[in-house]
Amino acid sequence: MIRFQDRTEFHNALATLPEPDAAAIEAAATRQASLTKPAGSLGRLEDIALFMAGWQGSERPRADRIRAAIFAGNHGVAARGVSAFLPSVTAQMVANFQAGGAAINALAGACGAELAIVPLALDKPTADICEASAMTEAECLDALNAGAAAVVQDCDLFFAGEMGIANTTPAAALCLQSFGGEAQDWTGWGTGIDAAALTRKTQAVQIAHALHAPHCADAFETLRRLGGREIAAMAGAILAARMMRVPVLLDGFICGAAVAPLARDNPAITAHCLAAHCSAEAGHARLLEKLGLHPLLHLDMRLGEGSGAAVAAQLIRSALAAHDQMATFAEASVANAL
Amino acid sequence: MIRFQDRTEFHNALATLPEPDAAAIEAAATRQASLTKPAGSLGRLEDIALFMAGWQGSERPRADRIRAAIFAGNHGVAARGVSAFLPSVTAQMVANFQAGGAAINALAGACGAELAIVPLALDKPTADICEASAMTEAECLDALNAGAAAVVQDCDLFFAGEMGIANTTPAAALCLQSFGGEAQDWTGWGTGIDAAALTRKTQAVQIAHALHAPHCADAFETLRRLGGREIAAMAGAILAARMMRVPVLLDGFICGAAVAPLARDNPAITAHCLAAHCSAEAGHARLLEKLGLHPLLHLDMRLGEGSGAAVAAQLIRSALAAHDQMATFAEASVANAL
Repeated sequence: MIRFQDRTEFHNALATLPEPDAAAIEAAATRQASLTKPAGSLGRLEDIALFMAGWQGSERPRADRIRAAIFAGNHGVAARGVSAFLPSVTAQMVANFQAGGAAINALAGACGAELAIVPLALDKPTADICEASAMTEAECLDALNAGAAAVVQDCDLFFAGEMGIANTTPAAALCLQSFGGEAQDWTGWGTGIDAAALTRKTQAVQIAHALHAPHCADAFETLRRLGGREIAAMAGAILAARMMRVPVLLDGFICGAAVAPLARDNPAITAHCLAAHCSAEAGHARLLEKLGLHPLLHLDMRLGEGSGAAVAAQLIRSALAAHDQMATFAEASVANAL
Repeated sequence: MIRFQDRTEFHNALATLPEPDAAAIEAAATRQASLTKPAGSLGRLEDIALFMAGWQGSERPRADRIRAAIFAGNHGVAARGVSAFLPSVTAQMVANFQAGGAAINALAGACGAELAIVPLALDKPTADICEASAMTEAECLDALNAGAAAVVQDCDLFFAGEMGIANTTPAAALCLQSFGGEAQDWTGWGTGIDAAALTRKTQAVQIAHALHAPHCADAFETLRRLGGREIAAMAGAILAARMMRVPVLLDGFICGAAVAPLARDNPAITAHCLAAHCSAEAGHARLLEKLGLHPLLHLDMRLGEGSGAAVAAQLIRSALAAHDQMATFAEASVANAL
């Protein structure tokens, strides 16, 4: 299990990312060219198979064990009226996850993913990022390590989801800090706020950015000041997965925002990630572009919880089923193209 | 089982299409509004659930039994050098389907679909559409009925796939006849032809269109003159599914082209259809627009066989799992939005 002792270890890991297995990718590409279909005709399913081959180090990668972790945290900035829901809903939804009644339970079941529910000090919201750093050094490290601990070495694919009322506000602040632009570029309707709340939310992002920007020298400090526990946990999980060469499906806006500070320090962090979908949240399309990711799905989803990743995991399963199970031209005695 | 006695019965069915169950849609929408998620946050998954509710006549529609039929036929126009593969590959691929080695076998397995393989007189190619009508009246009716016979009343979802070397040529001719434009608007690279073959193919579409257009007064005659057995079978299956209120996932370009002449006669034919994907084949995006359909997936697939529909069927399963299994706000004691 990966555990970061301090911020230096975290940054060292981020600076020395492993690469995919080039030989496995080559072997998978050779196999793909021999399968009974016109070359390239499975489109992005073929790209997925090669991507998975590289990270699993296997000519015929698997999606038998899909591991998902849903992290939950509360946010001091919620007191500024930036969400359509009360902060108490975070804990209520965690209970719903544990009872199996949320969207992610159904969607994880549909794709065969095992689900870890990881509530993070829900009774202790982060500080209001408009007034102080969201977390202390120890709190941020704990959250990163809670994320890292949720990844297991022997899974075929990992995805992270989140729950945290008001968390599109710190997510927008992280994007603004990491990739520039204006607060309104990154601030959206979240779970469905009204225009007045959107104004408050955009102002909160501006205020937080103005307060912390001079001090956000690196990924850890950016996550600590502008993030949240579930967001830092996602960042820790995604980095830990990379260290274990476990491929990752990124969910929506919050998940991408968790990666943003890491990508500013080392853009190669997304190489083991596929973007599951482009959500309806304002800023997500821009964020994916900044991260250099081309989303698999465009379904106007905006729920979080890892819901988009769970749907996209179905595509991974389909892609690998074709790659693994199809006969070659020789095996099936089918004549290839003229 | 649906069986069309003659072209008149076929056209009568096309003129008197059943509508979805409005009460079931309303009940499903009421349920959807009560589920533990922000309203609308599952995006198109919510639309899918309501669509399925309407055609199944159920507040909580199912995707337990997914039925797929793969139709295969041969084409006289193949002799004009319009494909990258020899016509003998059609029968070789049917054997591959039957042995379980093709992409559709793996993809149908991944989504849990049962697969019917329906070869249609492979040793008797249709006539070259540049010189004559593809089929006689009896041949076309037989193909339509072979399609209709492949749909079963008690399935939750149906999709049709096809195999037929050279069949993007008649498909392009059907689109041109049904929706106008120029031959090159509808003629693409198919399984991967070269530029010289694309020129021959575009000319074949032009010649066939010039020969038959004056006589294509209705859907049956258009399918008979410009179609092919597997194409007419898809059309028959999709109409039969509508008569049984079975929802349909449309696959790619050939499948859409099979519906095109029906849509020209009655645009409402697509109301029980979801477009699985937009393929990489030139003309498919335009065809979907003409059919009034917004595809679920954009994965640059261009294989046929029902492969795109099989992948999209995974999304249907996810959408219905969420709709069926999620707890309501009341059941989970979660507070709804402020």
